[in-house]
Amino acid sequence: MDIYDKINELYDKKREIELGGGDERIAKQHEKGKLTARERINLLLDEGSFVELNPFVVHRTRDFGMDKQTGPGDGVVTGYGKIDGRPVYLFSQDFTVFGGALGEMHAMKIANVMDLAAKNGAPFIGLNDSGGARIQEGVVSLDGYGEIFYRNAIYSGVIPQISVILGPCAGGAVYSPAITDFVLMTDETSQMFITGPKVIETVTGEKISSEDLGGSKVHNSISGNAHFRGKDEKTVLEQVRHLLSYLPQNNNEKTPELKADSNDDYRNDLADVVPFETIRPYDIRKVIEQVVDEGSFLEVQAEFAKNAVVGFARMNGESVGLICNQPKVMAGGLDINLFR
Amino acid sequence: MDIYDKINELYDKKREIELGGGDERIAKQHEKGKLTARERINLLLDEGSFVELNPFVVHRTRDFGMDKQTGPGDGVVTGYGKIDGRPVYLFSQDFTVFGGALGEMHAMKIANVMDLAAKNGAPFIGLNDSGGARIQEGVVSLDGYGEIFYRNAIYSGVIPQISVILGPCAGGAVYSPAITDFVLMTDETSQMFITGPKVIETVTGEKISSEDLGGSKVHNSISGNAHFRGKDEKTVLEQVRHLLSYLPQNNNEKTPELKADSNDDYRNDLADVVPFETIRPYDIRKVIEQVVDEGSFLEVQAEFAKNAVVGFARMNGESVGLICNQPKVMAGGLDINLFR
Amino acid sequence: MDIYDKINELYDKKREIELGGGDERIAKQHEKGKLTARERINLLLDEGSFVELNPFVVHRTRDFGMDKQTGPGDGVVTGYGKIDGRPVYLFSQDFTVFGGALGEMHAMKIANVMDLAAKNGAPFIGLNDSGGARIQEGVVSLDGYGEIFYRNAIYSGVIPQISVILGPCAGGAVYSPAITDFVLMTDETSQMFITGPKVIETVTGEKISSEDLGGSKVHNSISGNAHFRGKDEKTVLEQVRHLLSYLPQNNNEKTPELKADSNDDYRNDLADVVPFETIRPYDIRKVIEQVVDEGSFLEVQAEFAKNAVVGFARMNGESVGLICNQPKVMAGGLDINLFR
Amino acid sequence: MDIYDKINELYDKKREIELGGGDERIAKQHEKGKLTARERINLLLDEGSFVELNPFVVHRTRDFGMDKQTGPGDGVVTGYGKIDGRPVYLFSQDFTVFGGALGEMHAMKIANVMDLAAKNGAPFIGLNDSGGARIQEGVVSLDGYGEIFYRNAIYSGVIPQISVILGPCAGGAVYSPAITDFVLMTDETSQMFITGPKVIETVTGEKISSEDLGGSKVHNSISGNAHFRGKDEKTVLEQVRHLLSYLPQNNNEKTPELKADSNDDYRNDLADVVPFETIRPYDIRKVIEQVVDEGSFLEVQAEFAKNAVVGFARMNGESVGLICNQPKVMAGGLDINLFR
Amino acid sequence: MDIYDKINELYDKKREIELGGGDERIAKQHEKGKLTARERINLLLDEGSFVELNPFVVHRTRDFGMDKQTGPGDGVVTGYGKIDGRPVYLFSQDFTVFGGALGEMHAMKIANVMDLAAKNGAPFIGLNDSGGARIQEGVVSLDGYGEIFYRNAIYSGVIPQISVILGPCAGGAVYSPAITDFVLMTDETSQMFITGPKVIETVTGEKISSEDLGGSKVHNSISGNAHFRGKDEKTVLEQVRHLLSYLPQNNNEKTPELKADSNDDYRNDLADVVPFETIRPYDIRKVIEQVVDEGSFLEVQAEFAKNAVVGFARMNGESVGLICNQPKVMAGGLDINLFR
Amino acid sequence: MDIYDKINELYDKKREIELGGGDERIAKQHEKGKLTARERINLLLDEGSFVELNPFVVHRTRDFGMDKQTGPGDGVVTGYGKIDGRPVYLFSQDFTVFGGALGEMHAMKIANVMDLAAKNGAPFIGLNDSGGARIQEGVVSLDGYGEIFYRNAIYSGVIPQISVILGPCAGGAVYSPAITDFVLMTDETSQMFITGPKVIETVTGEKISSEDLGGSKVHNSISGNAHFRGKDEKTVLEQVRHLLSYLPQNNNEKTPELKADSNDDYRNDLADVVPFETIRPYDIRKVIEQVVDEGSFLEVQAEFAKNAVVGFARMNGESVGLICNQPKVMAGGLDINLFR
Repeated sequence: MDIYDKINELYDKKREIELGGGDERIAKQHEKGKLTARERINLLLDEGSFVELNPFVVHRTRDFGMDKQTGPGDGVVTGYGKIDGRPVYLFSQDFTVFGGALGEMHAMKIANVMDLAAKNGAPFIGLNDSGGARIQEGVVSLDGYGEIFYRNAIYSGVIPQISVILGPCAGGAVYSPAITDFVLMTDETSQMFITGPKVIETVTGEKISSEDLGGSKVHNSISGNAHFRGKDEKTVLEQVRHLLSYLPQNNNEKTPELKADSNDDYRNDLADVVPFETIRPYDIRKVIEQVVDEGSFLEVQAEFAKNAVVGFARMNGESVGLICNQPKVMAGGLDINLFR
Repeated sequence: MDIYDKINELYDKKREIELGGGDERIAKQHEKGKLTARERINLLLDEGSFVELNPFVVHRTRDFGMDKQTGPGDGVVTGYGKIDGRPVYLFSQDFTVFGGALGEMHAMKIANVMDLAAKNGAPFIGLNDSGGARIQEGVVSLDGYGEIFYRNAIYSGVIPQISVILGPCAGGAVYSPAITDFVLMTDETSQMFITGPKVIETVTGEKISSEDLGGSKVHNSISGNAHFRGKDEKTVLEQVRHLLSYLPQNNNEKTPELKADSNDDYRNDLADVVPFETIRPYDIRKVIEQVVDEGSFLEVQAEFAKNAVVGFARMNGESVGLICNQPKVMAGGLDINLFR
Repeated sequence: MDIYDKINELYDKKREIELGGGDERIAKQHEKGKLTARERINLLLDEGSFVELNPFVVHRTRDFGMDKQTGPGDGVVTGYGKIDGRPVYLFSQDFTVFGGALGEMHAMKIANVMDLAAKNGAPFIGLNDSGGARIQEGVVSLDGYGEIFYRNAIYSGVIPQISVILGPCAGGAVYSPAITDFVLMTDETSQMFITGPKVIETVTGEKISSEDLGGSKVHNSISGNAHFRGKDEKTVLEQVRHLLSYLPQNNNEKTPELKADSNDDYRNDLADVVPFETIRPYDIRKVIEQVVDEGSFLEVQAEFAKNAVVGFARMNGESVGLICNQPKVMAGGLDINLFR
Repeated sequence: MDIYDKINELYDKKREIELGGGDERIAKQHEKGKLTARERINLLLDEGSFVELNPFVVHRTRDFGMDKQTGPGDGVVTGYGKIDGRPVYLFSQDFTVFGGALGEMHAMKIANVMDLAAKNGAPFIGLNDSGGARIQEGVVSLDGYGEIFYRNAIYSGVIPQISVILGPCAGGAVYSPAITDFVLMTDETSQMFITGPKVIETVTGEKISSEDLGGSKVHNSISGNAHFRGKDEKTVLEQVRHLLSYLPQNNNEKTPELKADSNDDYRNDLADVVPFETIRPYDIRKVIEQVVDEGSFLEVQAEFAKNAVVGFARMNGESVGLICNQPKVMAGGLDINLFR
Repeated sequence: MDIYDKINELYDKKREIELGGGDERIAKQHEKGKLTARERINLLLDEGSFVELNPFVVHRTRDFGMDKQTGPGDGVVTGYGKIDGRPVYLFSQDFTVFGGALGEMHAMKIANVMDLAAKNGAPFIGLNDSGGARIQEGVVSLDGYGEIFYRNAIYSGVIPQISVILGPCAGGAVYSPAITDFVLMTDETSQMFITGPKVIETVTGEKISSEDLGGSKVHNSISGNAHFRGKDEKTVLEQVRHLLSYLPQNNNEKTPELKADSNDDYRNDLADVVPFETIRPYDIRKVIEQVVDEGSFLEVQAEFAKNAVVGFARMNGESVGLICNQPKVMAGGLDINLFR
Repeated sequence: MDIYDKINELYDKKREIELGGGDERIAKQHEKGKLTARERINLLLDEGSFVELNPFVVHRTRDFGMDKQTGPGDGVVTGYGKIDGRPVYLFSQDFTVFGGALGEMHAMKIANVMDLAAKNGAPFIGLNDSGGARIQEGVVSLDGYGEIFYRNAIYSGVIPQISVILGPCAGGAVYSPAITDFVLMTDETSQMFITGPKVIETVTGEKISSEDLGGSKVHNSISGNAHFRGKDEKTVLEQVRHLLSYLPQNNNEKTPELKADSNDDYRNDLADVVPFETIRPYDIRKVIEQVVDEGSFLEVQAEFAKNAVVGFARMNGESVGLICNQPKVMAGGLDINLFR
């Protein structure tokens, strides 16, 4: 055996890791309409730009028979790549390995890549698909969440943090996405809740489906925890790419300008949009369209608290944020109704 | 009546405001060799660059019959525009409205545009033509001056502040220009004084003309309160444009460089300018001419304290300030004589 | 006599000063294989870029007959120029004047040019060739060293400081180079020591040559005081120019990038350089060659503490520093042996 | 008339002002179980410590016949005094003058005393009893609220701000108390709401009493806007004094320590309070009693969100804050139910 | 079983832990002239002032049969107490438990108590008696040292850090004491070295005793790593107490003054101590005695680099540091000889 | 000769230095009504508190025969002592040595004691009695003034700086006092001017006496350069002591409070002091007397700009500053007349 054998051995090992939980589990994932951790990364990032970090890490638990088995990458793929040529850092949980459950080393990989994102001033994206804390690791696993929450907090306002929910996200796993800047969810296949339907039935007797308890529609329209949703993973990952085009890389940079069309003709309609009688309602979105660069408005939380319309757009190609009353709904009045 | 009528109504009202105190008063102003507030703005700024702010504001005084009359723009035009393509903020007092007298709202308009100048880091220019405090508003009017003085002070060293005196500037009105960076005056038509000739005659028995008390020559040569003067408004407003070319927009920026002529031939004369015998006087201005970019020297306070020569010039196109002894006058010695 | 005579007189005086200690002493300097202070500056700097400062300064000592003699430039040439188009400040001691001995004004000239280097954020280079403190000036001369040491200390980490030893550098003169960032020496003609061979023989009875006591080999390989050495002055001055290409101008700037060759083919050898058996030694320099831009590695202190390899190189044209264990020597282990 | 007459005139005027709205209105106030502005101050402060500020201020409104009438102190008493020997600043609205309605000058008096409190680092207490904005002054009156809100915000975390609601507090008047640190209310006689019962009935058809809409019980138990309540003004004002004993004067000082009883005997009961079986609920207040200085626990918001117990106490005489889960209610679980 | 049984169980457990490695191992420790971890704490601190932290912590290693055994306190006692009434924080390694070997939890206990010392601004004292890293925990154990070194570094200059070596201190264990402010050692029973005699013999063939390699005399006189030594543990712990009397609690406090004797008579001897002939040596310690408060001089590193005398003393009761040349040794000249 | 001889030799030398310029010159000084440098220090400071610094310093000039003569202390006594128990630093120029002329070392002594004053946060007092720059030292002497001016500037606002003019203070010597906080002068014997009567006569033909040009009355009443004056040195030095009682030691300390008399009876006169008719003038000093602690008012610049009254006083024993219009003079109006 010489040095080249050794190097090839390493490459083989890496290829094996890239298979994640194996063909059977991957097939199951696909059946559910879900992609694998690496397929998602490929869809999200510019082609060929992904660089993986720490692929060989495994857990160090010995209890509950865990000393007999390790999972590739400890259930999560981390690394960096580019979106529209701008660097981003990410993790992608691998549901085919331990059901994406978060253990000590799994968490450390995520924390490390968050540190790199902050150090290099680039957005951080989490692709969540996890059964929650890895119970075999007990409180150490919860401490892992702590490492992540701590970084969510201190990097808040420093770099954009985006959470994409592509499968279950329950218990300890749900706090981190909830405190990131944006949450995107897939319809049908993703859920966020602290306590699942079974526990709720046990405790309260109330039967509720996962989707009704914490599906994409619930969080986009009622709880306000999510900001965007899409019919499938491809759509949602495309939304992430689009959203990032409105955001700076970090708190010291400006969002790159886009070339703006200087076609101002369509703005003549503004007088027709706002009604002459001041008590007649109208759709503020129509006003926005007349004011910002054509087609540039990206509404955030479009289904939540419809008496307000918020989002991003561009003016002369420069990214701007909009916070608007929506006269069409409740006359745009502010209310406190969390559950409407 | 529909929305378009309403919009046109607004335009009509604005056009009416733009007429200021009306044709008769404008004619009087012209007779005195003075321009209207808006004519001055047009001369000062790059063509078509002026954007007016708060044109519809009127006072809220009810005493002394003031509830019966309002004046367009409350006697002052405020807004922003460009000089040589660089943004500036300004006010221009309208002598045809209440004699340009400063009241609560008049002051608030000025204070607002000062805040904008500082916020956007651009020079602030005041075109002064005012009879002083609006006595009908009493102490509230003086409080208005306070709002202006306060901003003069806190924005000092932050943005350039330039005062152009184009008519009377008396009493409370005179403090603000006096603490701005530069004061420019027109010959004959402008005066600055705290107490006018009439009060002085009443109190001291001494008869003195407005021009001798606070005219452009007095302030440029004796009191040192003014830095430049010109034979008419056009000349003075051109001086403002020229002066700004030597100044940065604010304390964080550099003055734009001008392309410099690299014709160094004329410098050979330096040896002839400075006399061989050290006790022989010479004109320091001739030395300056040999050292700076040709024709670039702008003397400040040319008529005041002639034993010193100060001003701006360019070296290799870069703006520099000069502080020189003038051997030609009093052998360049420093003195304390305020009234020579 | 008119002004032009006066000016010519000045030029004549300057030309005289440029001759330093005169032809005889210059001949002696050349015999020893050493150049004059100005010949060195010409070799070091981009052609025609040198501007001299304070050439007319002379000492103010009156004791020991010093009131009868002054030396051109008080024995040191100071000024600024460019290396590869980037500004540097320097002094060059003139051994032909008072043997380059440092007195009050000599030191003040050096201190002044250091202040200018720091103020303008450019590297400072000292070309040392001095018999040490000028004893006729006593403690005032030592105070002059103090002014230099103080600046060495406060400008440390602010601008690069480079000392080139091109002749004797003894006693008080040796502290300053020792605390600059880099020391370069010529073989045979330069020495650094606090106490010379004669004093050592007197005090300890031990006979030692200047070269063995403080020559370039000793300081590059045993004491570690020097970082580079060369066979003659031209070689060493070229090393200074090369070294500066890896350094930023000051602590707020980046080192200019060089265009990098993107020829990565040669890197395939890395697997052959690092041996398969982990206990077999190898040359870390071979690894560096495979990693950095081809031909870009500049080893610092190549002869000192060979169990570590440090230096500069470029990666994709960007300057980087390297600190490496050297497995080939003592298995790369750290030791404390100062005199190995 | 001499100077002493003049001084006496001033004293007479001040005595007149101290009568507020006159005997008839004072009688009405008393009938409702309410005290006058000055009676409240006397109850709140250490005897004889009150110093009034700006008693002679009146409004400057001329519309709606307001030029015919002024009210003593413009409807509010402001000043400073001491509580337990420590300085406090306060205002006390005088319902007998314009129904305590807030106008421009009324607001300015409050803003001034807030500035003094902050400048001198002492708590600020508002005794609220006001019909809201003085509509005769229109938007100027609302601007007055703005001056107060602005100070509430910037002095938050700098000095303690305490609001005591002793009568109606509606519309614009209610925002300021809501953002102060502590709100105390009297039962029956005080209410806080943005829109009163009549408007609600008009708009929604729903009939509701003032007490049910914004009485002390509602705000202490349901909305959480209030922190304490008492059966009458004396009780509530005594609560303010007690509360202040737990608070520092400002963010740079420590709360004065009280001499603590070192009687630790009663702590033996702790083992009996916390049940042996971990799933059995218990009252966290009993634990607190065992831990802090005897009798020192002051619960804040005792009736609100009973699954948590918060408040102040003393340990060894030093003031501490406590935030506790209350196992006795909902097993101490956190919920989001705003209206339970 | 009721709650009191439970509490007693806890007390029993704590008492058991306080026995450490058990009677047999304690006896062995005593035989070697060494005390137990807790006996040392009792000697060091003011009587009854010690409060232990985290006594119940045990390791979480499962390899090498470690899952079968835990040791009381994981081999280290941590906590705080008082010396001369001033708080200190400390750890005391328990050689009777796992030979005081440092594992993950052992390190975490030490790191925690260091954090508390820094947070509360009190000196930190380490009583070292450890076989080094616990090899069963592998790299996790080394990471534990990292946590300690990190804190040594960041708390350096913030609080005094004192290391007392009372047994073996080898390998990873020796770095931390070496970077604390003061190291004290017992004669015969303590040693500090990176690699022990056996490894040295294996590798170099050189036989050397533990005492000669890293005993108290070696480190106090040759390497300079230690600052004080004493004939037994009691002496050394008394030295710690004495040393602390010269030190402030932290970098924001002053050292408490001692009442000084104002007996200045003995100072008359100074003229006799310093010899008339300037080349005659004398003992600088005698000069110190004449200058500082009588009996107050505490020499630091008395046996190391004897050509310099450093230490603490008091002047008028105030603590001062002294750095002196010692003319008696090598004429007080500075040298670089590390191994003299 | 033994050590005690040596010590006595030193004491003898010091006693000799304390004689200054010798008996003859001292007699002359006394004849003029002036004291010696040391007599002044004794009068100024608390008895026995003076500690002299650098008494043995002499100049290092060799030109103009200066190498033949040195003067005790180089013409200035420097050191520190106490006033009312609070430390002060001072210099006292010795007119009997070189006429108190300032040379390089003389200046260095002053600069050193200024550094000590600032470092120790204590007032700095200069007792000036000097013929100006020592012309034998040429530009070096002027550089000495520069060292003093620099410190006057940077210590301004840090420690109180007080100049006492007790003899001539001309040319370069006069700038430093002019920029200190307070200047005190003796009548007849002290003068401050830049150019003396002789030069003025030569240049302008105008004859003027020293006293009229720069005597104490001129500077206290016309130029405003001086703040206090007294009939003799004793009076003026007493004024310094009194003035210091109103000043803090430095910008971080408070002025010590004095016990205040609580006798408030005399304040009843206030109504009689301020006239009933508002246009009648009155003496503001009488008002001050009614307001501050009895007898505590110390007027500053009592003779200068009498339309304003400024000074220090105490209220309840605490030092306060007062700036008052003086209605009795010019109706208290502000004017710009420098030479009235």
